Amino acid sequence: MFLTVMTVAEALIALAPARRSAVLRVAPALGAVPARDVRSDEEIPPHARATVDGYAVRASDTYAASEALPAFLEVTGSVAMGRAPEGEVGPGAAMAIPTGGLLPHGADAVVMVEHTTEPMPGHVELLRRVAPGDGVLHPGEEARPGDVLAPAGRPLRAADLGLLAAAGVTEIAVHARPRVAIVSTGDEVVPAATRALEPGQVRDACAPALAGLVRAAGGEPVLRGIVPDDAAALERVLAEAVGEDDMVVVSAGSSVGARDLTATVAGRLGEVVCHGLAVKPGKPTLLADCGGVPLVGLPGNPRSALVVFRLVGIPLVRTVAGITAPAPAPTVRARLGRDVPSAAGRLDVVQASVRDGVATPLFGSSALLGPMARADGWFCVPEADLGLAADVEVEVALYG
Amino acid sequence: MFLTVMTVAEALIALAPARRSAVLRVAPALGAVPARDVRSDEEIPPHARATVDGYAVRASDTYAASEALPAFLEVTGSVAMGRAPEGEVGPGAAMAIPTGGLLPHGADAVVMVEHTTEPMPGHVELLRRVAPGDGVLHPGEEARPGDVLAPAGRPLRAADLGLLAAAGVTEIAVHARPRVAIVSTGDEVVPAATRALEPGQVRDACAPALAGLVRAAGGEPVLRGIVPDDAAALERVLAEAVGEDDMVVVSAGSSVGARDLTATVAGRLGEVVCHGLAVKPGKPTLLADCGGVPLVGLPGNPRSALVVFRLVGIPLVRTVAGITAPAPAPTVRARLGRDVPSAAGRLDVVQASVRDGVATPLFGSSALLGPMARADGWFCVPEADLGLAADVEVEVALYG
Repeated sequence: MFLTVMTVAEALIALAPARRSAVLRVAPALGAVPARDVRSDEEIPPHARATVDGYAVRASDTYAASEALPAFLEVTGSVAMGRAPEGEVGPGAAMAIPTGGLLPHGADAVVMVEHTTEPMPGHVELLRRVAPGDGVLHPGEEARPGDVLAPAGRPLRAADLGLLAAAGVTEIAVHARPRVAIVSTGDEVVPAATRALEPGQVRDACAPALAGLVRAAGGEPVLRGIVPDDAAALERVLAEAVGEDDMVVVSAGSSVGARDLTATVAGRLGEVVCHGLAVKPGKPTLLADCGGVPLVGLPGNPRSALVVFRLVGIPLVRTVAGITAPAPAPTVRARLGRDVPSAAGRLDVVQASVRDGVATPLFGSSALLGPMARADGWFCVPEADLGLAADVEVEVALYG
Repeated sequence: MFLTVMTVAEALIALAPARRSAVLRVAPALGAVPARDVRSDEEIPPHARATVDGYAVRASDTYAASEALPAFLEVTGSVAMGRAPEGEVGPGAAMAIPTGGLLPHGADAVVMVEHTTEPMPGHVELLRRVAPGDGVLHPGEEARPGDVLAPAGRPLRAADLGLLAAAGVTEIAVHARPRVAIVSTGDEVVPAATRALEPGQVRDACAPALAGLVRAAGGEPVLRGIVPDDAAALERVLAEAVGEDDMVVVSAGSSVGARDLTATVAGRLGEVVCHGLAVKPGKPTLLADCGGVPLVGLPGNPRSALVVFRLVGIPLVRTVAGITAPAPAPTVRARLGRDVPSAAGRLDVVQASVRDGVATPLFGSSALLGPMARADGWFCVPEADLGLAADVEVEVALYG
């Protein structure tokens, strides 16, 4: 078999899956991905409203007002919250109005109560002039009909939920959370719930960890169990996954034989676009396109698998989920605590803890999960570098 | 009423709620907060395993090996995945072994297959020497009995789920997602699903947005509906929430009257510790301690409410959830695109979009949600500053 080794960037360009998860109409929810721009049907707010507590006035009545020479107006009424004002504001008149109250006819500005005095009941003195529009939220200032309230492809955030609610939008077209099949393989792999291990057995650590990453990336993990190192059994499970799910992840056994098996079966179900990533740890990674459904064969070591899934799997989950503007990842700049050697032409992913601005690399066999569980995040030694010297600044991507 | 205005830091120290959400025993899940350190019962791995594909050998048989003068060993068998090795490795012998295979008795190292040749069937030549332990994962290298697998108070991440599964831990004590009551108030507020608004009515934008923030912070929003501006009605709803939930958030009406109402009722149900935050927007914020349950009265303007909830509400949700090591927030450093004036003694929270390293402030009435929905994040002008000049570097907290 011809082995194609690619950088992460090359691999993501080569495997640009056509698949997108189904589009549903649902209530807006945090993280949901609009399938189309969501636009306003309405003018929001529909009417002018006060943005301060005070008095609705005609601005022209206040032009000469100052602390030394206040404007003197008659208070002809007050505006109640949530109701249309009774009466209107004529020349020389004012109406008391709370923040959010509807601006009465005739008025074109609101004077803050802090800038007024009440010389006698039924009258108010204005100590400052206001311009038309001061203290007023205008109709359509939040949105006009046709304005985009939430763009397609960007997961909804809290402010979006507020804006959609303000516009009365209670149902939108979103991409479903993509179904991501997780298939564990290996004669040695047994479920995590196995109490006593037979010699040579290991519990399936990858599947629950991958399920967590899938969920955090916006996908819905579909755990398809543990398959022995047998081509027919693997093909049966993967064919079913390709038929029913939006993306397939194979947590391969760690031996050469198990990896070859995944490659052989993936080649039967689709086109292998990459068989090896220029990443350490994580080289034995396989990427295939199965009729638009992306298939990722991960390395056997759990830590390598999680490193590769963050680099390649999460971007694929997002693509399939219709996300075109992913949320930013948290990072922190820190000074490298020691030299980190690397080889040119390969991306090195290094786990690190960060304390007081110093990033301390955590090494150890990639068969160990501990260095990752103890790490605050990870940094990369780029493909072109032969290593990083102590004291250089690195950008540590933080685990969230 | 005596008005106490505090900085955010002062307020969080003053309101240090005693309440913690219930502790349950559940399967480990992403984001779950262990109530106690989770420790290993076992040695992981329980037996020595190969970390490479190759040959299990006695290191002492390889000490003289080199490319020029390979060591010549007899291959006496092979180790199968997931099973105890058959036979052992004697002097001058080797067994083929896959990555993850159990190290046979007698062997103390594994030579990578890349460093071997097969001169004739049943024999192997080693081109490099290995030291004892090379190519081997030792028993207990991942964890020993009693080692902490996941610390209390830090939400579980993907690698934690893997490590717990590897150790066979399928149930742990975690804090339940805290129940966070969200109470909307105001005679003018109607549900988001209201089709046609009467003059003066506004749809409830805050509750869905707050529910999103609560969920993202690890809480479970409990939407307790819209209460009119009536002290008895508000007291009934808040008393029920204080009795049943772990935290209470009141999205207050925007008028002075509505705010006073919240303060009065909060004072009856508990102790008001802060009545005003030195934050813009967000000053009219109320914090109370109701028998250990924190109560947050938010400003009436939706954007002010969301700003304050990020500053004060989210840390409180995390505290009640038992989180002592919150996940890092994503930030980006950017150059400020223009001068931003401020007042000393007040924290100014400014929405901003970030493009090409430049942060552009988005202003507008705090009654508008749009500037927040269009922003990539926000930055602060600290209490001590009179403003920030164009071109200074600011740290923008990004919306996720």
